[in-house]
Amino acid sequence: MMACRYNHRIVMLFDTLTIVGVGLIGGSIGLAARQRNLVRRVLGVGRSDAALARASAAGAIDTGFTASEAAVRESDLVVFCTPVDQIAAGVVAVGSQCRPGTIITDTGSTKSAIVRAIEQSMPENVHYVGGHPLAGSEKNGVEHADVRLFEDRITVLTPTTSTDAGALQKISDFWKHLGARVCTMRPEDHDRAMALTSHLPHLVASALAGVLPDELRGLAASGFRDTTRIAAGDPSLWTPILSQNRDAVRDALTALRERLDLFQRALDNEDERQLSMLLDEGKRRRDALGS
Amino acid sequence: MMACRYNHRIVMLFDTLTIVGVGLIGGSIGLAARQRNLVRRVLGVGRSDAALARASAAGAIDTGFTASEAAVRESDLVVFCTPVDQIAAGVVAVGSQCRPGTIITDTGSTKSAIVRAIEQSMPENVHYVGGHPLAGSEKNGVEHADVRLFEDRITVLTPTTSTDAGALQKISDFWKHLGARVCTMRPEDHDRAMALTSHLPHLVASALAGVLPDELRGLAASGFRDTTRIAAGDPSLWTPILSQNRDAVRDALTALRERLDLFQRALDNEDERQLSMLLDEGKRRRDALGS
Repeated sequence: MMACRYNHRIVMLFDTLTIVGVGLIGGSIGLAARQRNLVRRVLGVGRSDAALARASAAGAIDTGFTASEAAVRESDLVVFCTPVDQIAAGVVAVGSQCRPGTIITDTGSTKSAIVRAIEQSMPENVHYVGGHPLAGSEKNGVEHADVRLFEDRITVLTPTTSTDAGALQKISDFWKHLGARVCTMRPEDHDRAMALTSHLPHLVASALAGVLPDELRGLAASGFRDTTRIAAGDPSLWTPILSQNRDAVRDALTALRERLDLFQRALDNEDERQLSMLLDEGKRRRDALGS
Repeated sequence: MMACRYNHRIVMLFDTLTIVGVGLIGGSIGLAARQRNLVRRVLGVGRSDAALARASAAGAIDTGFTASEAAVRESDLVVFCTPVDQIAAGVVAVGSQCRPGTIITDTGSTKSAIVRAIEQSMPENVHYVGGHPLAGSEKNGVEHADVRLFEDRITVLTPTTSTDAGALQKISDFWKHLGARVCTMRPEDHDRAMALTSHLPHLVASALAGVLPDELRGLAASGFRDTTRIAAGDPSLWTPILSQNRDAVRDALTALRERLDLFQRALDNEDERQLSMLLDEGKRRRDALGS
């Protein structure tokens, strides 16, 4: 179970994996872990039998549970893929049910608040490692799960001084075997980065979509569609993300508003040179990302 | 030449088409008009022999000219696909060179300033119709021209009280035969609409890309990429667009800033209910667009 090779030979990293919350992300983890034989079996924890039946039918889990206790007691690895406002309480609740040595991780888009709350309350012999795969979609549900969702995507792990080094290594190996590139950051650095790369874009896409009058809908072409695509994301997932990362999102919003001020002033002053400089810098930074 | 059928039989709408500015849009018009045999021949006007050779090699034009006079004298239809700050002067300059009955149109992303300037100076027997196909890309150049670029896309025509009805009909037929859906709007209504559906998104995408620090580039995932994709557009094309449509863009920017204010206040007040309402409305409007 400890052997870990990157030459694509079959390697079983954990015996029993439990996924709490089998939607797009959790379902994709289950599909990929099963296809790659990284675990012997996958248990899924969901809110309803119907949801678990869909996860099972999609091939994401072997067995479904509507209560987490029974599942986590048999698990070596537990991955929480619930909305960010349910992760810390969920991890803390199952922490005391786990066998010694069990590793728990999560896939939440925010980290500081979650990691802080969990580290205050975990039993000593159960190891939590914060995580966030930078993959996803504006779509939801196990029906959109994708066995290749994490391939060549980054997964950020957010260890702290209290993180168990062995557990960190195993979680890192797990993600690498799912195809991801792994990097580690402090939870607060992760949150500040995501505020700019993910949470602000979501807020702005929503605001742009929000100012389009219904009667102009037919004139919105591919540029508008691309720019607002992520606004279709589920508000029940995004409200707690923006809320949990409130301070960093406010800083990011301030930075954006200052840049919009520069555009506004250039327009007010009919200053084409400044307009052009602003657009040049945006293009330079966007081009650097590649397509 | 007048016959116009929509049942996909070959129909020649014009004898000689001249495209002034054979880049992505002009090249795509040339490709599509030639493939569909809508004209007998396509002349291209470009800045250099090298550019015209590329257009010719791409199959977008039959013959290239570096000066427009010789080309337009033999033309029945002239389409200006130059940057918006060069359209009005270009059309006015060739207007006096055209044979009586020649129709001139354009593909500029702004309309009021262009239409106004041209209508003041056109000879009586040469007919101008303002146009704007809502198709394009952040890419430039005839190398990216696409014979299907206009299929199922909208082309807006912007006639005024002085537009010749016969010319309007022929331009409308031309775009329909290129695969586009045609709608007509007043130039100022077009500009107000585009400020919200196209020019503001461009400005915002550029601002978002502009606030991403270089060191966070590796963490920008698909959401950031989608939201900022159009920021890669050519600043030399977009500066005059934002500038020519300055008043409407400022109004659109004001509307966006008011909505960002609502987000800011919801974050400041830790008002999750309001955050959720704002995200819900953005999602509802984005969902209404389809993918």
